[in-house]
Amino acid sequence: MEFKEIVMSRYATKKFDGRKIPEEKVGELLELVRFAPSAINLQPWKIKLVTDQAVKEQLKPATWGQEQITSCSHLLVFCADPDFEGLIKKLGQLMKTSGAPEETRKMVIGMATEMTAKMSPEQKLCWAQSQLFLALGNAVNGAKSLGFDSCPMGGFDPKEYTRILKIPSPLVPTMLCPLGYAADKPLQKVRFAKGEIVF
Amino acid sequence: MEFKEIVMSRYATKKFDGRKIPEEKVGELLELVRFAPSAINLQPWKIKLVTDQAVKEQLKPATWGQEQITSCSHLLVFCADPDFEGLIKKLGQLMKTSGAPEETRKMVIGMATEMTAKMSPEQKLCWAQSQLFLALGNAVNGAKSLGFDSCPMGGFDPKEYTRILKIPSPLVPTMLCPLGYAADKPLQKVRFAKGEIVF
Repeated sequence: MEFKEIVMSRYATKKFDGRKIPEEKVGELLELVRFAPSAINLQPWKIKLVTDQAVKEQLKPATWGQEQITSCSHLLVFCADPDFEGLIKKLGQLMKTSGAPEETRKMVIGMATEMTAKMSPEQKLCWAQSQLFLALGNAVNGAKSLGFDSCPMGGFDPKEYTRILKIPSPLVPTMLCPLGYAADKPLQKVRFAKGEIVF
Repeated sequence: MEFKEIVMSRYATKKFDGRKIPEEKVGELLELVRFAPSAINLQPWKIKLVTDQAVKEQLKPATWGQEQITSCSHLLVFCADPDFEGLIKKLGQLMKTSGAPEETRKMVIGMATEMTAKMSPEQKLCWAQSQLFLALGNAVNGAKSLGFDSCPMGGFDPKEYTRILKIPSPLVPTMLCPLGYAADKPLQKVRFAKGEIVF
C-alpha cells in the first residue's frame, strides 16, 4: 500500500469488531513504532500493551465510556518517559554496544545532556510527550499498512490509567491507540484548505 | 514503497545535494501533511514554506550553523497554533460547508470547547506543539515515499525564526523539516530493544 493511500484511508475507528489481530502482526507494528524518529534519538516513550478483556473493561470508565477500549483487539497505552538522565545513560550504553563511532557517541550524549539540563520538569514532560506523537503516528499509519485499524485517543484519565495498569513513575500515560478491525465506516475527511495552513 | 521500507530507510539527512524538488512533488507532500490526524481534528499547526536561498542563509546562524538549512531544496517551518478559539470557530464553519451532520458538528465543537477551556496558556501551547508532531511524522515518512529526504530538527532559535520569517503571533515555530535529496549516507539505526519499551 502506498503511503498516500495509507494517509487517506486511515481514520479514527470508533468501533472494532472484536476479532483478534495475530500476535505476529502486532509484533510487526511494534517494530514500526520502535523505529520512529525522536530528537537526539532519546526515544522518550514506553508502551503498555493491554489485551486482557477484564482490564479493558476496568479502563472503559476512565476513557469516558468510549467503546474502542473494550471492542479493540490490543490496546497500546503510550507513556511519556521524562527520565532524561536515565534515557541518556541507556542511549550511551546502546551506542557503545552497537559499535557507533566514539566521536558520534560523545557528540550525541553531550548534546542531549546540554539540552535537557536547561529544562524545567514541566518542559521535560512536554518535550517527552511531544516526541511520543512521532511514535503514535507510526502506529496509526503502520496499522493501516498491516491491514488493520486504529484510533488515536487523548480523552482519558491518566491518573486512573496509572492506578489500574500500575504504570511505574515517572511514566505518564499520554495517548491511547486501540488496534483492531473496524466495525464502523469512516466519515468524510475534513481538513483546512492548503492556503489556510501553508504560508 | 511499503510503509515498513519507508520507516526503515528514512533517516535524518545531515546534508542535501542542492537539487530542487519539483514543486508538484512538494505539493503532494503538503497534502500528506495536511491530512495528518489531530485530536478533535483541530489541526493546530501552520507551515511556513521557505525556498529563498538568501533567507535560508539568514536562518542558518539561528540553527547553530547546521547546513541542512542551506543545502536543502525546501524548508518547512512547523509552527504550533495555540489559538484554539480561532481554530474551533474555523473548524465549525468548515464542517458546516463540508456537509458534516449537524449532530457531529455540535459534538465536536462542544468537546473541543470544553477541553480547551480548562487549559492554561502553557498547556495550550504544549498541546498544540504535541499534535504538530503527527503532521511532522507524515512529512518525514511522506518525503521518503515520494523519493526524497528530510531531517526533523528541533535545534534552532524560535525567536530568531519568528523575527526573520515574520511569523505572526500567536504562532510558535516548533520543528523544522528541510527537504531535499541526500548528499550523505545513513548511519546504522540504533534503537532500544523491544523489551525495554514495551511492558
